[in-house]
Amino acid sequence: MDAYRAVVDKRDQRIFLERPIPDATLERILQAGRMTGSSKNREPNRFVVVRERAKVAAIAALGPQARWVAAAAAVVVIVQTERHDYDAGRCAQNMMVVAWGDGVGSCPAHVDETQLGALLRVPAGLHVNRLIAFGYIDPARAMPPRSVARRRLPLDELAHYEQW
Amino acid sequence: MDAYRAVVDKRDQRIFLERPIPDATLERILQAGRMTGSSKNREPNRFVVVRERAKVAAIAALGPQARWVAAAAAVVVIVQTERHDYDAGRCAQNMMVVAWGDGVGSCPAHVDETQLGALLRVPAGLHVNRLIAFGYIDPARAMPPRSVARRRLPLDELAHYEQW
Repeated sequence: MDAYRAVVDKRDQRIFLERPIPDATLERILQAGRMTGSSKNREPNRFVVVRERAKVAAIAALGPQARWVAAAAAVVVIVQTERHDYDAGRCAQNMMVVAWGDGVGSCPAHVDETQLGALLRVPAGLHVNRLIAFGYIDPARAMPPRSVARRRLPLDELAHYEQW
Repeated sequence: MDAYRAVVDKRDQRIFLERPIPDATLERILQAGRMTGSSKNREPNRFVVVRERAKVAAIAALGPQARWVAAAAAVVVIVQTERHDYDAGRCAQNMMVVAWGDGVGSCPAHVDETQLGALLRVPAGLHVNRLIAFGYIDPARAMPPRSVARRRLPLDELAHYEQW
């Protein structure tokens, strides 16, 4: 898929098909995370990849706002060697854009970091960031009808030139 | 450019050609920022686009670590209606990936937020995040020689499966 289209068309998805993500596709997603630039080239991001159904369900049970995660084919948790939310966001977006290009939807979620870290046996001293849920999407359900879709704010409300 | 290639090949660049970025290309970059998903769909990101040479130079003078920004053809400052570094990172990455696909290099930089906000007349109550410097790159200088290029950490050091 064209880079511009993948970036601009990508919508966060929380409804997934019951279809596993092949290892090769998951590896492309992780490579996208791995190759992400980082502040001072510190490479703070690590990944815990969860596909076992019971463990995905346990993650989804960590908070009412994460129930939809139970349907994900794979969950990638970003764990950081030093806290850096901006670098986590860059990494997450790279993974989600590449996934989208391969027909895989995604959405980040935030659950209690201590509980998630305990569940995944993340060692003390590392920092659990957000998780990203991935799964194939049903194109028929991937987009809200145009008539009801919430539109992004228009560019002329967002962008200012030379000064605010 | 293919989405996977744009994401995986993109390297942060701090050396730019003296060549302006056409309005149409800049608009694609801003659309990439605009269409980025955000936590709870809050759309916190706004953009201040700077191309006037004197103003770009003034931004570059805000800190010794930002001197290279002076050569940027355009600087996009992310300003937020509420602080959210992760969403700023998602947005920044989208803009940089689309730029890369169009031959435009980029790198984020962090300068004193108060000084940058004053320079750009950002109203009180908004939050200045990082800036991103954009400019065309010389392919011959865009990559270090393979023999000296710092490689990213290998995937098998970064990724853990099912638990840490």
